[in-house]
Amino acid sequence: MSETIFSKIIRGEIPCHRVYEDGHVLAFLDINPLSRGHTLVIPKQAAAQVHELTEEAAAALGRAVTLVARAVVRATGCAAYNVLQNNGAGAHQAVMHVHYHIIPKYADGSGLGIVWRPGKLAEGEKLAREVAGQIGR
Amino acid sequence: MSETIFSKIIRGEIPCHRVYEDGHVLAFLDINPLSRGHTLVIPKQAAAQVHELTEEAAAALGRAVTLVARAVVRATGCAAYNVLQNNGAGAHQAVMHVHYHIIPKYADGSGLGIVWRPGKLAEGEKLAREVAGQIGR
Repeated sequence: MSETIFSKIIRGEIPCHRVYEDGHVLAFLDINPLSRGHTLVIPKQAAAQVHELTEEAAAALGRAVTLVARAVVRATGCAAYNVLQNNGAGAHQAVMHVHYHIIPKYADGSGLGIVWRPGKLAEGEKLAREVAGQIGR
Repeated sequence: MSETIFSKIIRGEIPCHRVYEDGHVLAFLDINPLSRGHTLVIPKQAAAQVHELTEEAAAALGRAVTLVARAVVRATGCAAYNVLQNNGAGAHQAVMHVHYHIIPKYADGSGLGIVWRPGKLAEGEKLAREVAGQIGR
């Protein structure tokens, strides 16, 4: 995959406001936050989308999201927050390196806006079989 | 924490369209999907919010999100998708048991709608220190 601004941040060539780092993961404040405490958690593996991660990187990232979310909640006192991870330009992904957003939601409305238009599940049994058949492939 | 519909699904008392299960995690189709292939990935640990998970459950969940996302991409052929995890009623959480949504986004517009109103990071150095100071606490 191609180089992104996050590769440069991981290598320390571009500064960031770091909040957490381990062998697999880096977390830092978003410089264009939706709300106070908006933080990014990224894998050091240079994968564009979350389904491309190794299992090891994915597990480290899942652990770090929980650790960093806990720290954000304690530092900001936010009562609610969203964790969002976008894959593909059509899904609002801007930097083509996996990143989880942790976005506090405050009473003043700052934070992530969500538009939710649910439908009804059709042919669930068939679809579940099709998805299940692709696990581990 | 209190009992939720997801506790009953985990125990098999309410059926689901299951796509994946291991010792820590269950994944199944959302019955009110935003788009075809909308899937939920939940920990078996009965935690309401993601920052309350054990590190072990969080890592298992991160791994499973990647495995299930890969299967959803392969089964649906979606070119883009969002991973969303809501914490607290103010952040659009409806069932008070941690769940990651994997939501394909299609060219017809079905999927997650996002409202993104970024600002500028203020006092980043101070805030990063405050968040970093809460890691592991």
